[in-house]
Amino acid sequence: MSLITTKNLSKKQLDAIMNKAQEMEPYAQKKQAGTMMKGRILATLFYEPSTRTRLSFETAMLRMGGSVISVADADSSSLAKGETIADTARVVSRYADIIAIRHPKEGSAREAADYADVPIINAGDGAGDHPTQGLLDVYTIQKEKGTMEGLNIVLSGDLTHSRTAGSLAYLLAHYGVNLTFLAPESMRMKEEVTTFLREKGVSYTETDDTDTALRNADVLYATRVQRERFSNQKEYDRLKDRFVFNKALIEKHNASMLILHPLPRVYELSTDLDEVPGAAYFRQVSNGVSIRMALISLLLSSSL
Amino acid sequence: MSLITTKNLSKKQLDAIMNKAQEMEPYAQKKQAGTMMKGRILATLFYEPSTRTRLSFETAMLRMGGSVISVADADSSSLAKGETIADTARVVSRYADIIAIRHPKEGSAREAADYADVPIINAGDGAGDHPTQGLLDVYTIQKEKGTMEGLNIVLSGDLTHSRTAGSLAYLLAHYGVNLTFLAPESMRMKEEVTTFLREKGVSYTETDDTDTALRNADVLYATRVQRERFSNQKEYDRLKDRFVFNKALIEKHNASMLILHPLPRVYELSTDLDEVPGAAYFRQVSNGVSIRMALISLLLSSSL
Amino acid sequence: MSLITTKNLSKKQLDAIMNKAQEMEPYAQKKQAGTMMKGRILATLFYEPSTRTRLSFETAMLRMGGSVISVADADSSSLAKGETIADTARVVSRYADIIAIRHPKEGSAREAADYADVPIINAGDGAGDHPTQGLLDVYTIQKEKGTMEGLNIVLSGDLTHSRTAGSLAYLLAHYGVNLTFLAPESMRMKEEVTTFLREKGVSYTETDDTDTALRNADVLYATRVQRERFSNQKEYDRLKDRFVFNKALIEKHNASMLILHPLPRVYELSTDLDEVPGAAYFRQVSNGVSIRMALISLLLSSSL
Repeated sequence: MSLITTKNLSKKQLDAIMNKAQEMEPYAQKKQAGTMMKGRILATLFYEPSTRTRLSFETAMLRMGGSVISVADADSSSLAKGETIADTARVVSRYADIIAIRHPKEGSAREAADYADVPIINAGDGAGDHPTQGLLDVYTIQKEKGTMEGLNIVLSGDLTHSRTAGSLAYLLAHYGVNLTFLAPESMRMKEEVTTFLREKGVSYTETDDTDTALRNADVLYATRVQRERFSNQKEYDRLKDRFVFNKALIEKHNASMLILHPLPRVYELSTDLDEVPGAAYFRQVSNGVSIRMALISLLLSSSL
Repeated sequence: MSLITTKNLSKKQLDAIMNKAQEMEPYAQKKQAGTMMKGRILATLFYEPSTRTRLSFETAMLRMGGSVISVADADSSSLAKGETIADTARVVSRYADIIAIRHPKEGSAREAADYADVPIINAGDGAGDHPTQGLLDVYTIQKEKGTMEGLNIVLSGDLTHSRTAGSLAYLLAHYGVNLTFLAPESMRMKEEVTTFLREKGVSYTETDDTDTALRNADVLYATRVQRERFSNQKEYDRLKDRFVFNKALIEKHNASMLILHPLPRVYELSTDLDEVPGAAYFRQVSNGVSIRMALISLLLSSSL
Repeated sequence: MSLITTKNLSKKQLDAIMNKAQEMEPYAQKKQAGTMMKGRILATLFYEPSTRTRLSFETAMLRMGGSVISVADADSSSLAKGETIADTARVVSRYADIIAIRHPKEGSAREAADYADVPIINAGDGAGDHPTQGLLDVYTIQKEKGTMEGLNIVLSGDLTHSRTAGSLAYLLAHYGVNLTFLAPESMRMKEEVTTFLREKGVSYTETDDTDTALRNADVLYATRVQRERFSNQKEYDRLKDRFVFNKALIEKHNASMLILHPLPRVYELSTDLDEVPGAAYFRQVSNGVSIRMALISLLLSSSL
């Protein structure tokens, strides 16, 4: 099996991943050196650079005793010499036991999985999905809050283009949470996600007003408004400032609000937020290692 | 000893490599985790990107329990800061136990070997040689066909610039095979190779007609006609189409023909060929790992 | 603890590093495979490429049985996506046990250390410091000469911009050596270093005349005059030729002079020098591995 999207994961699969991640914590948190992946190789194929995600996968594999082969910037490498993703997937399958692939084009991970002989993990495909990020976000919320039931969760930023917000929303549909999408009119949560939520009977609210969104928020999941999405610099400057969060704003609404961010943050989270107890974005990073350990482990033992 | 070219390998050395590669198969095919290279380091120094070859070497070393240090694109790195290959070879010799080097300039691997204190493996030097590719090609033919004796082997494409075709031809001179070089007039097999074959008393045929070449073929070794070799785009378009192979063409001549390609293929092999039983170009990839394991192993134990 | 500069190292710390490096020699010189770093991860974060230094750190970690995660050219990677060094340091701390960082901006390693949760080793920060190079230089002199006492040591080249010359000078202040700075007027040893030496009561001589400098030299530490420092190509050509050393020049003064260079050399050391017995610049490379093993080891066991 491969992990391409969070959309079709069952609650049972989700639970299996969360449980396995918890089991992996001592290894992810450097308390124990794992050997369960001895002799196994992970390939990280990154057609666009993403240091954070790549290093997280590699750390996960290495701390379980496995090895790594890597293409850090496949675009400038011969992977781009006109070869199809299908062929690349077939070739790398002969080297590695499992492959994490990042690609700027939506659908690429799916295509790789169709031709690979080993499990593929989608490490982000364009505006598509970023399932390991969504999973680590859920894992972080559960761990920090104890339970998901009844939580008011706000997703903010450019929700049209954020693959992490989409991947997270699909997963949150499995829990009894209340969702609020905070975004400017031109960056509302993508149709594919809201349709999915309506079909699953999950209620959500949309707003472009920060105070309205945060009023009863237990969790804020902030994402970037990405400059590269705008043809108009003025429009960018106008919008980005409306979705910046600082300590005063958070404390006004809920001093113990849990704050998540897929990183890197640029300006969306003021550094004065770092001292707030609920600022969990760096703790998220360690959770990402646990989650990726869990996925590598479950996929390689065909137990997902 | 270093491995720079296939030209001067003896039949005895060739047999030693083939036997060792076979011994390595369980490790290359992920059935067993090796430990024979524990504590040893392979350096992959790639002055031009070649993901396939680099990952193959690294996989070989890792699956034998060794470690890897790597420069994936030495051109843009400080290796290029005006330092000579001689100095780089001396420096990296202090780090690694063995070095695989890829360089756009013919003769570079030889120069590195002259100054290094550890074995050098040429992983491709310009239009020069690509010995590990030639060796894995021979290994694949032997494995797929059972024997080399009496085989009709066709090498096609831009044989003037293909270092893999040249490296393979040198090796085939050791076996009782019949060679056919299928190429346009302007891309005939390079003089250095045909001279060598004549000196060794190996007969070969040259043609630019596909049907003539394939008539009694047991093995087709296809290579790319590389766009970058042409100053004239029209000439490129005209020629490249004449050396494209598809299922119908192969089946017309010999449905069980063995088809090899050094990869990446771009257009030379139609994807409908993938279902033909003799389409061995992805199986070649695994054989490449076995061959590189054999070479690392033999060179490090000074038994070549 | 982190290692950011050699300026504030005590003689006791310096001795501890030198002793540990000696202990590490069998591993650095490939005589023994270490396991003391099993389960530990070194991250090499290089915001500017420096293959030599990066591979040295990685070799050190791997030969002690540890693993490596790496960003070979952070500039073109997402590390540059507007994230602060502080955030990057916090993130990578969640992956690695220790971080070696190279950055074009002076002060960056210090900033990283302020926010990281794991030890940081400065692998060169702009015109700032390059402490591991300085340490391996001292180690080499001690090893080659037996003692530091009374040695006449010449540092030559562009001493204003050479971070390695500065890092070395700070360390030499701990020993009873006589220092000569050989540089053109426009490239004299930087003020910060000479001030430090005067405060420590270390006497030094400055000259721009090669023969004067080499007259009683026991050790010559040559560095490059870097083209990129000159706006005026003519001025560069005029100056660089004045600080080129060859066999004849060295033998005229002292045939057993010890010659060091941080590498890569471009033109400063003629290749005919390579046969001189005191040409230690390639032996320096192995010593670099020992020193980096010592530092990783001491910092991870909090014993520095």
